[in-house]
Amino acid sequence: MKPIFIQLQCAPGRTYEVADALYKAEVVSELYSTSGEYDLLMKIYLTADQDAGKFINEKIASIPGIVRTLTTMTFTAF
Amino acid sequence: MKPIFIQLQCAPGRTYEVADALYKAEVVSELYSTSGEYDLLMKIYLTADQDAGKFINEKIASIPGIVRTLTTMTFTAF
Amino acid sequence: MKPIFIQLQCAPGRTYEVADALYKAEVVSELYSTSGEYDLLMKIYLTADQDAGKFINEKIASIPGIVRTLTTMTFTAF
Amino acid sequence: MKPIFIQLQCAPGRTYEVADALYKAEVVSELYSTSGEYDLLMKIYLTADQDAGKFINEKIASIPGIVRTLTTMTFTAF
Amino acid sequence: MKPIFIQLQCAPGRTYEVADALYKAEVVSELYSTSGEYDLLMKIYLTADQDAGKFINEKIASIPGIVRTLTTMTFTAF
Amino acid sequence: MKPIFIQLQCAPGRTYEVADALYKAEVVSELYSTSGEYDLLMKIYLTADQDAGKFINEKIASIPGIVRTLTTMTFTAF
Amino acid sequence: MKPIFIQLQCAPGRTYEVADALYKAEVVSELYSTSGEYDLLMKIYLTADQDAGKFINEKIASIPGIVRTLTTMTFTAF
Amino acid sequence: MKPIFIQLQCAPGRTYEVADALYKAEVVSELYSTSGEYDLLMKIYLTADQDAGKFINEKIASIPGIVRTLTTMTFTAF
Repeated sequence: MKPIFIQLQCAPGRTYEVADALYKAEVVSELYSTSGEYDLLMKIYLTADQDAGKFINEKIASIPGIVRTLTTMTFTAF
Repeated sequence: MKPIFIQLQCAPGRTYEVADALYKAEVVSELYSTSGEYDLLMKIYLTADQDAGKFINEKIASIPGIVRTLTTMTFTAF
Repeated sequence: MKPIFIQLQCAPGRTYEVADALYKAEVVSELYSTSGEYDLLMKIYLTADQDAGKFINEKIASIPGIVRTLTTMTFTAF
Repeated sequence: MKPIFIQLQCAPGRTYEVADALYKAEVVSELYSTSGEYDLLMKIYLTADQDAGKFINEKIASIPGIVRTLTTMTFTAF
Repeated sequence: MKPIFIQLQCAPGRTYEVADALYKAEVVSELYSTSGEYDLLMKIYLTADQDAGKFINEKIASIPGIVRTLTTMTFTAF
Repeated sequence: MKPIFIQLQCAPGRTYEVADALYKAEVVSELYSTSGEYDLLMKIYLTADQDAGKFINEKIASIPGIVRTLTTMTFTAF
Repeated sequence: MKPIFIQLQCAPGRTYEVADALYKAEVVSELYSTSGEYDLLMKIYLTADQDAGKFINEKIASIPGIVRTLTTMTFTAF
Repeated sequence: MKPIFIQLQCAPGRTYEVADALYKAEVVSELYSTSGEYDLLMKIYLTADQDAGKFINEKIASIPGIVRTLTTMTFTAF
């Protein structure tokens, strides 16, 4: 399995509500509120044959309060 | 005809619905869901005398679920 | 008077409607639809004692269909 | 206490309304309307044990008319 | 002929030297030093059959002191 | 095999030299000079078990004149 | 006088050296090392008739170790 | 201790050399090569009283081959 990092911009004032919903959905391995352009950063693990775009679209982006996502794929873990 | 690349940010959870609508509208030559700041990347072909801004505004941006577009013009194909 | 460049992101499919409204409002010196992250680029002229932020907020951003603005001030004309 | 800089993108035409609400809420040390991608820039002071993300989410992002925030933490003051 | 906007990031401290070189090269219609991420913004005019990428690469980017360019094509002038 | 899009920022005035080197290296499926923040956009094909980061680092980024790369992975082709 | 915010990207490992030089040059009102895309954020004050671009180019960007600047003008202080 | 995420842009073709140096320096908790605008993403842990800017400047940015860093602070771990 490979880690994927996803950053989320949330609707103003809804960051912690989104974080709680993500935590309860048990799809994330790590989840933080952060400084910068995005409000949350999370790490998920997918198998090589899972479609990351579909997974994010269905399991994550569907959570109410998310405005925008930035997906960063990892190639190698050192 | 020249290729133009258009990247789309979609409303959360609606990426695949937008992709299906674009596919059915038969305006795109290639269409992918992608990593990064944008959810979809597509290639379209326009003739030199077509107004790319008008085309995108009327044929693409009018599809429900699109939030934001990034248009990249090509100059030369190598 | 100094020129100020303002770039506008419009609601999907409403770029040309916004452009028409700006043109009719007679506040812009030049106005173009463009490639890139923003849909429209315009040049306006303000006097040194005009508050650019207030002007943009009241005269431009109030036009329906505008989502986001990027304001670039000019220092020197060569 | 450490200063934190927060930049705000406001709903079109609502920048000055947001600025007034922030000013009245007495949470900001400095507040300016600005050029660039963001409409407002503010400086707030938090103690080392305050959760900046929670503070921004509850006290600032909850003000109506804010679309997006960019948070910049300071490390050292020279 | 169509206007093209080009923004330039210059090597630190060399912005006005680049501006002078561009002015003397007589390739620009308008040229300003600006606020924001880029140091200079210029407008040039090209005919429909000119390769903008080649023109920028040969006539503009070759001027010493330029670090990075952002090219924005215009579609329609309103 | 899956397509990957890579955008390149080149040292000022060296875009077409980089494009020629890429073309001769026969690693790209499509290659264009473009408008926007990046000078070149290319499409390459990699198998699922190839390390995209390693490939880009060794075969592409090693070409003289490249300053910066933006890699966009594709998930699904529609 | 009006405040201007300038953010600086420094050559890797030279951020604190740049900060010291800025501090000694006595041109800045406030100066911080920060999180995010830029390494330093500073506030300077200029009179309405000072050319901010020229000031930054001559007094700030000329300090060795600065790679890139982002200038944000303020319009109104609330 | 709190995790901090740092993304690195490396000189073209030197990404894996930088990754090796970081790994050997034993300052990182996790390290990946990634898609997107940055080449490497790492997680480090600092105590509340450590100056993150100074740490990054001295321990990380000093490694040869790093061009640019993006630092993202975490506030809360969910």
